[in-house]
Amino acid sequence: MTKEKKRIYKPSTISGFPEWLPEHRLVEQQWMDHIRRVFESYGFCNIETPAVEEIDVLMAKGETDKEIYCLNRLQADENDKSDARLALHFDQTVPLARYTALHFNDLVFPFKRYQMQKVWRGERPQIGRMREFYQCDIDVIGVDSLPLHFDAEMPAVIYEALSGLDIGRIQIKLSNRKILIGLLDHMGIEDVVLVTRTVDKLDKIGEAGVRKNLSEDLGLSDDQIDGIMKLALIKTRDADELVRMVDGLGIDHELVAEGTKELAFCLEQLSHLPDEAILVDLSIVRGLDYYTGIVYETNLLDIPEFTSSVCSGGRYDDLAGSYINKHLPGVGISIGLTRLFDVLLQNGYIKNEKKSPADILVVLPNEEVRSDAAQTAQVLRSRGYNVEMYHAPQKIKKQLSYAQKKGINFVWFPPFDADGTHEVKDMQAGEQSAADPETWSLS
Amino acid sequence: MTKEKKRIYKPSTISGFPEWLPEHRLVEQQWMDHIRRVFESYGFCNIETPAVEEIDVLMAKGETDKEIYCLNRLQADENDKSDARLALHFDQTVPLARYTALHFNDLVFPFKRYQMQKVWRGERPQIGRMREFYQCDIDVIGVDSLPLHFDAEMPAVIYEALSGLDIGRIQIKLSNRKILIGLLDHMGIEDVVLVTRTVDKLDKIGEAGVRKNLSEDLGLSDDQIDGIMKLALIKTRDADELVRMVDGLGIDHELVAEGTKELAFCLEQLSHLPDEAILVDLSIVRGLDYYTGIVYETNLLDIPEFTSSVCSGGRYDDLAGSYINKHLPGVGISIGLTRLFDVLLQNGYIKNEKKSPADILVVLPNEEVRSDAAQTAQVLRSRGYNVEMYHAPQKIKKQLSYAQKKGINFVWFPPFDADGTHEVKDMQAGEQSAADPETWSLS
Repeated sequence: MTKEKKRIYKPSTISGFPEWLPEHRLVEQQWMDHIRRVFESYGFCNIETPAVEEIDVLMAKGETDKEIYCLNRLQADENDKSDARLALHFDQTVPLARYTALHFNDLVFPFKRYQMQKVWRGERPQIGRMREFYQCDIDVIGVDSLPLHFDAEMPAVIYEALSGLDIGRIQIKLSNRKILIGLLDHMGIEDVVLVTRTVDKLDKIGEAGVRKNLSEDLGLSDDQIDGIMKLALIKTRDADELVRMVDGLGIDHELVAEGTKELAFCLEQLSHLPDEAILVDLSIVRGLDYYTGIVYETNLLDIPEFTSSVCSGGRYDDLAGSYINKHLPGVGISIGLTRLFDVLLQNGYIKNEKKSPADILVVLPNEEVRSDAAQTAQVLRSRGYNVEMYHAPQKIKKQLSYAQKKGINFVWFPPFDADGTHEVKDMQAGEQSAADPETWSLS
Repeated sequence: MTKEKKRIYKPSTISGFPEWLPEHRLVEQQWMDHIRRVFESYGFCNIETPAVEEIDVLMAKGETDKEIYCLNRLQADENDKSDARLALHFDQTVPLARYTALHFNDLVFPFKRYQMQKVWRGERPQIGRMREFYQCDIDVIGVDSLPLHFDAEMPAVIYEALSGLDIGRIQIKLSNRKILIGLLDHMGIEDVVLVTRTVDKLDKIGEAGVRKNLSEDLGLSDDQIDGIMKLALIKTRDADELVRMVDGLGIDHELVAEGTKELAFCLEQLSHLPDEAILVDLSIVRGLDYYTGIVYETNLLDIPEFTSSVCSGGRYDDLAGSYINKHLPGVGISIGLTRLFDVLLQNGYIKNEKKSPADILVVLPNEEVRSDAAQTAQVLRSRGYNVEMYHAPQKIKKQLSYAQKKGINFVWFPPFDADGTHEVKDMQAGEQSAADPETWSLS
């Protein structure tokens, strides 16, 4: 028999588009299940929007700095006018805004939604930057106004979500843009955006670097810089102390008072969390102009390889003004899941030997007992276990080796003949004992 | 204060890209959770591949009849050579083949995997045809050979997965291409593909139509057509009857015997399922040339609006020959989830009033008891309930109305003052009674 020589196209991974082996995907699934469970436990409902939006929707606020992937049909039908100009979404906030505008009359406000989907950015791939990645977002959208309750709830939800992932201690930092904006207004400094961007670099270029930039690039006076730096260096976990510290700056400005009060409220609502979990840090201002009040960043205290914020967000004044004539303020926060998972995986923090979700492998000793083995597997499944039945009556040694390679911890021996009994082998302990499929328990 | 007149871009739904309201997404999530649970209970592990593949990978087997969406960066960097030619995947089989070839050395075979992702096809949208939709696939891949065990397992898994969705009775039809191929070889008919495609139309154009096509288009003799039709009309649930019926055709051909034996084996392994759930129907041949043995189609017996197969698949001889020099036979089946969900939703089969996953709304009677209310919510959450805390001390009537609108069934009243007691109101029964957050139970 001659075999036709096949043409083989050898595939490779595509830079910026990660995928995991089954044993690592299993951990990612556990993470996503846990995060979802926490989001739902606070009453956030899920939505899923298409991977694509009209380019006009993505651009409604003007140019974006995100690199957008547009879609083109390979064999486009010239006569088919149904093709909208489409592109992959680059975040979940624009789709949320579009969704909220489109379905406004069918939603109940405040609208608490979570969304866990992939987003795409055509950026040049580099370590920690991906072109396809999961984001896990929660947002709450109000009509005309939105109570501060939700600003305080965000860190509580995120703390529970992240601290269940076995990634060490979490620290969520809060700040409020109103305070810096009030200070700048008080000092007569108009260039809020540029000052904000400079202060945002504090942890990268240090206090001296920020001072230099504020002086040389923005031409601020030493007094002005002192004032800004004093504010930016305020860090505290305590609501009363925060109020005292800001009062100590001696700025009489409505926005400063309001911003401080809002942060103090949040600190009080978050007092049940561990001490290191929450910190007001007024140097946090976030790069996006979009935010108008409280902002969040999150650090992993025990993972030195993960240096940036794993979860950020804040309060915004107008979600969907580009799509609907309604005033919809909101507050939201987003976990950059894939980036986090990738860094932990690459640095050896994620270990898993299980290449299968199966708890039990039921052995097939010989063809005669196939239906008994299948019946045993079915009983164990009906009791909530994940059970693979071995597929052919091969040597028992080979069947045990299969269980070992897949990381299946228990091997079940159904009776080898009509008079026999059931036995189960604990692969890790190496022990084998009699068992009843109707009553056996894994623990 | 003058308000700047905003430019509004009013969005609309994009044809072929469905999205659901929160209350319907909740049902879709329950469906997907159930399907996933069943897949895992049989030991299938999950993988997720990127939404995109290289166009060369998608085209490795030659032209595809699927309309492919290619990606282009909106602001492509001419100097960046890192951009591969990418396109969205149109199914999960090509990605599985590429994944298996790429990670061959890290996988344990037989490789049992499930995959539940969206796929994209640039087809002209029409009822039941979408451009973005979920598929839920299971496949088992062997090296060089794959036991028939897995062909028999597929319908068992799919039956459990679909019968848990509350969509009435399921019928999975099995056939085996080997039998028709053997018959045609026996008769000296060479044009297997064209005959197969004609027989595939039996339920659309009827027996007379198939006869006419076989005679007029393919020039077969009446005797040949009689032979083909006798075979195609065989339907049975019973293994012994199947063997008798095929024997009755009097075709002495190895492939016919082999195909019949394989189907009989599957029927025996599936005897625990309800009578109507499984049927061998030799008219089923599937359009794709790809399949080489057993094939599956699935009908919903109680949903007249859903006329096509909701879940199809079969045995194939060579999964990844275009990407790796290995012989990898497999068997797989795929649920067209979004299409099914959409048809049921449009026809009123899916009803849900819950716009929130919350079981309980904890009322906030006044600002003084905010931390008590929050504490109560937290206790109930720690006991596994999904709990939303109301966000502001508004009129109780307003808070009850919010619960009603979101479909939250229980409203919890924490003590209104230091001496008070907890009460809970069942919104459907309209009853309110004393309750302890540490011991209360929903049932």
